[in-house]
Amino acid sequence: MSCFFDWKEDRNLTLLVDFYELTMANGYLKKGVGEKIAYFDMYFRKVPDDGGFCIMAGVQQLIEYFNNLKFTDEDISYLRSKGIFSEEFLSYLKNFKFSCNVWAVPEGTPVFPNEPLVIVSGPAIQAQFVETMVLLTINHQTLIATKANRIVRAAAGRPIFEFGSRRAQGYDGAIFGARAAYIGGCVGSACTIAEKRFGIPAVGTMAHSWIQLFDSEYEAFKAWAETYPDNCLLLVDTYNVLKSGVPNAIRVFDEVLKPMGLRPVGIRIDSGDVKYLTEKSRKMLDDAGYPDCKIVVSNSMDEYIIRDVLSQGAKIDSFGVGERLITAKSEPVFGGVYKLVAIEENGKIIPKIKISENPEKITNPGFKQIYRLYDRDSNKAIADLITLADETIDETKPIEIFDPVFTWKRKKVENFYAKKLLVKIFENGRCVYECPSVNEIRDYCAAQIDTLWEEVLRFENPHKYYVDLSTKLWSVKQRLLNQFNILYNK
Amino acid sequence: MSCFFDWKEDRNLTLLVDFYELTMANGYLKKGVGEKIAYFDMYFRKVPDDGGFCIMAGVQQLIEYFNNLKFTDEDISYLRSKGIFSEEFLSYLKNFKFSCNVWAVPEGTPVFPNEPLVIVSGPAIQAQFVETMVLLTINHQTLIATKANRIVRAAAGRPIFEFGSRRAQGYDGAIFGARAAYIGGCVGSACTIAEKRFGIPAVGTMAHSWIQLFDSEYEAFKAWAETYPDNCLLLVDTYNVLKSGVPNAIRVFDEVLKPMGLRPVGIRIDSGDVKYLTEKSRKMLDDAGYPDCKIVVSNSMDEYIIRDVLSQGAKIDSFGVGERLITAKSEPVFGGVYKLVAIEENGKIIPKIKISENPEKITNPGFKQIYRLYDRDSNKAIADLITLADETIDETKPIEIFDPVFTWKRKKVENFYAKKLLVKIFENGRCVYECPSVNEIRDYCAAQIDTLWEEVLRFENPHKYYVDLSTKLWSVKQRLLNQFNILYNK
Repeated sequence: MSCFFDWKEDRNLTLLVDFYELTMANGYLKKGVGEKIAYFDMYFRKVPDDGGFCIMAGVQQLIEYFNNLKFTDEDISYLRSKGIFSEEFLSYLKNFKFSCNVWAVPEGTPVFPNEPLVIVSGPAIQAQFVETMVLLTINHQTLIATKANRIVRAAAGRPIFEFGSRRAQGYDGAIFGARAAYIGGCVGSACTIAEKRFGIPAVGTMAHSWIQLFDSEYEAFKAWAETYPDNCLLLVDTYNVLKSGVPNAIRVFDEVLKPMGLRPVGIRIDSGDVKYLTEKSRKMLDDAGYPDCKIVVSNSMDEYIIRDVLSQGAKIDSFGVGERLITAKSEPVFGGVYKLVAIEENGKIIPKIKISENPEKITNPGFKQIYRLYDRDSNKAIADLITLADETIDETKPIEIFDPVFTWKRKKVENFYAKKLLVKIFENGRCVYECPSVNEIRDYCAAQIDTLWEEVLRFENPHKYYVDLSTKLWSVKQRLLNQFNILYNK
Repeated sequence: MSCFFDWKEDRNLTLLVDFYELTMANGYLKKGVGEKIAYFDMYFRKVPDDGGFCIMAGVQQLIEYFNNLKFTDEDISYLRSKGIFSEEFLSYLKNFKFSCNVWAVPEGTPVFPNEPLVIVSGPAIQAQFVETMVLLTINHQTLIATKANRIVRAAAGRPIFEFGSRRAQGYDGAIFGARAAYIGGCVGSACTIAEKRFGIPAVGTMAHSWIQLFDSEYEAFKAWAETYPDNCLLLVDTYNVLKSGVPNAIRVFDEVLKPMGLRPVGIRIDSGDVKYLTEKSRKMLDDAGYPDCKIVVSNSMDEYIIRDVLSQGAKIDSFGVGERLITAKSEPVFGGVYKLVAIEENGKIIPKIKISENPEKITNPGFKQIYRLYDRDSNKAIADLITLADETIDETKPIEIFDPVFTWKRKKVENFYAKKLLVKIFENGRCVYECPSVNEIRDYCAAQIDTLWEEVLRFENPHKYYVDLSTKLWSVKQRLLNQFNILYNK
C-alpha cells in the first residue's frame, strides 16, 4: 500500500500516549489480566455546532499508527527511568507485537452519536494502550471533515479552498486538517505538503507583501500578469479595493493579458465588507468587459457568514476559508470517547457497562455492528440500527425499530436494504483493509451525503436521525442496568 | 545543542507552506527582486479571551524549522510537476541555503498586541517563504501557553495537570501543546512523549476501564493499591462516587496501605457536580482518618469553571484539564500575522506600510526593537516602547510616552530601567541563540508575570498595558500614512 507514510525513528509516536495507559498496562500484566480479551468502542455523544451528523475521517492515519507501533530501546530506557514499571512489563513492551482486531467505519461516511466508529478487541494490555491515539486521530480529522462539510454546503456549489495552515494548532493540525477538509468537500488547499503527500490540489497566488515589494500596486499587478499570464488572479485590497485595486487590475488585464489573447482568472478580496465590495467590483469588471473574471473572498469566513452574505446577494464565485475551518473555531473539540464494552471469559463475550448519573453517558455494552437501513425506492438512509455483532438483518421482512429511551416511539421499516457500516481493518494485528485514495473518499462522502434527507442536512435544529438499538442489544443493556441498580443504588 | 529534535526525511516540513509563498518566490526571482532585502514582522492584534497579555512560546521549534529547511529531490520533482515554476527557481530551491537574520522575543515572556514577536530580514524570496511556518509555530504555542497560564492563575496555587492529548487537533497539537501548557505554568502532563522529549513530568493513574476490567470496584481498587502502594490515587466515579467509590477507596486504604504504613495519594472525580461531590468526599475521607488524601478533579475544566467552583468552596487540591486547554476552546485561534515592514535599497532601510480601512489593521512600519520599561523600586513593568531598531533609551532621564492614536494621552516615566525584548536568534542563516530548557522557560515565565500589575492580570476587563511607539517611529508612520492618503484617497 504505497499511499502509506512510514514513520521512522524520529517520528516515533509510540509514546504519544496518556501516561495512565502505561500504569494500567503494567498493572494488568502484574495482576494477570493483561492477556484477557477486551473490547473497546470509540464513539461520540454530540454533533459539533448542533449539526445533524458528522463525517468520519482519520482511518488511514490510524492504520499507519498501528502499523508503526513499536517501542525503541530509547523508549524502554525512558520508561525504566520512571522507576515504577516492572522489568517483566518493560520486556513485554520491548517484544511488543500488535495483535488486536480492529473494525472501523470507512472515512467519508456520515456518522451519528453513540455509534461505534472504531472497535478494538484484543489483549487488554494492548487494546487499552492504543486509546489515546485512536481518539486523537479520529477526533481531529472527524472534527475538521465535519466542519468543512458544513462550510461546503453553506456555499451552495461555490468552491471552498482551505487556507488555514498558519492558524492551525500545530503542524499535523495543518496537514491532516487539509486532508480532512478535502474529504469534507473542499476543492483544494493552500497547504502545499498536502498535495505532495495526499494529492490534494494546492492553490494560491499572492499575499499583500507581493504588492508592497513593488513601487506601486499597478507595477506589482503588471509583474504578476507577466509572470503568470495563464493564471492571473490579483489581490485587490492592499490599499483601496474600489479606488485602486480593481481599477489597477482592469488596467493590467487590458494591457498585459488582452494583447496575448488571454482572460484573467479573477480577483481576491481579503478585507472589508464583502457584500458591498463584491457587488461594486462585479459591476466594474462586467463594465470593463470581464464578466468571466471570478471574485474570490477570503476574510474570516465560515458557514454562518457565507450563508449570510450569499443571502444578501454578494457576488462571490468562490471562498478561501482559513482559521475558522482549520480549528473548527465555533466548536473546536470533537468529544470522542473510548470505552470498555465487553471482555471474553472462556471464549464467551461478556458485555460490560459504564454507568453515569447522566443517562446519555451510559455506554452501550457488548461487541456490536451498525446497520444502515436505506429505502429501496429513494435510496435515502432511514435509520441506523446498532446490533450485537452476530445479529443479521432480514431485508425481506419489515423491521420494527424503537427509540432506546422512549421505547413507545416505534417505527415499522419496510421496503429497505441494510448495509453494515463497520468493516474489519486489522485481523490479529495485521492490516486487512485497502485504504481508498483521498479522492475516492471525497467522492464517497459526497455520494453518502446525498442519501441523507434534507431535514438531516439542515443547519438549524436538524431532524434527529434515528440511531436505534436492536431488541437483543437493548435487552442486554437493560439487564446490566438492572444488575447495577441492585448492586449500587441500595 | 542537544535538546534539538532533528527532522529527518520523513519529517521534512519544508513544503508545509502556503502555496502562494512559492508562486510569489518564483515571481520575485523572475522579476529580479528575489535578492532584495525585506523585513517582516510577526505580531498579533488581540489577546484571546479578552485577557490582558499573552505568553510567547514556540521559538525552539521555529529554530528547528530554520535549521532543517532544505528541499529534497522529491520536493523539487513535485514542484516541477506543477508546471508553473521556472527551472531557474527550482535550481534556486535545490541549492537553498537559509541566510536570513531573525530576532524573537524569548519564550515565556508576557507579550502584547502590535509588538513584533519575530522579525525576519533577508532576501525577499526567503523571508517571504518562511511566513507559514513562523505563524503556525508561534501562533499555536503562544495560544496554548496563554490559555494554560489563565487556567493556572484561576487555580490560585493548586497544581494544574494537562490531560488533553486525546482531544488535541493532531499529534503536534498534543505534543507541542503539552510543551506550551508547561511553559504557561502547568506542573505536568499526561502526554508521555512530552516527558521523554522535553522533560515535562508525565502523570496519570487509571481510567474507568481499569475498574470495569475487574469483577468489582473494590477488587479493582485493591489490585491498584497492591500494584502501586506508593502512588495510590483512585478514580472513584465509575459507578457512584459517594455510595461506592469513596467507601471502597477508604476500605482499600485501610486494608492495603495502612498495614504497610503507607498513606494514600488521592482520589480523582471525573464527572458529576464537583462542588457537591468534593465537599462530601472530603468529609468522608477526613472522618476516616485521611485528611491528607488529595482530591483531584478532571471534568471539563477551564479557568471560568475553576474560579466558580473554588469560589463556592469546592474541596479540590488539584485539577486535570483536558480539551478546553489543549484546544484553547473558548478562543481556539491565535491571530498572528506576518507583514512586510521594510525593504533595503542601496543599503538603506526603507519603511513600508500596509493600509486598511480598519485603523488597527494598519501596520507599524520599519525595522524595530521593543523596550520594556520597569520601575526601579517595584520592578514592575510600566510600559513597552516600540522603537526603530537603532534607537537607544537613556535610562538616566525621564521619558515621555504617548498613546499612538490618542496622542494627547501622555505619561512621563521616571526612575525606570529598560530591557530589550527582541534577541537575535539567527545571523545570516546561522543559529546564534542557545535555547533554554522548558524548565528554565517556565521559571522565567512565572518571574516575568510577577512583574505585571494585578490590574493587567485580571480576567475580566483587564487594564490595557501601555504599548507605545517612540516619537521617531510614530513620525515615520505618520509620514507614510500621509503619503498614502495623497496617493489613494483622491
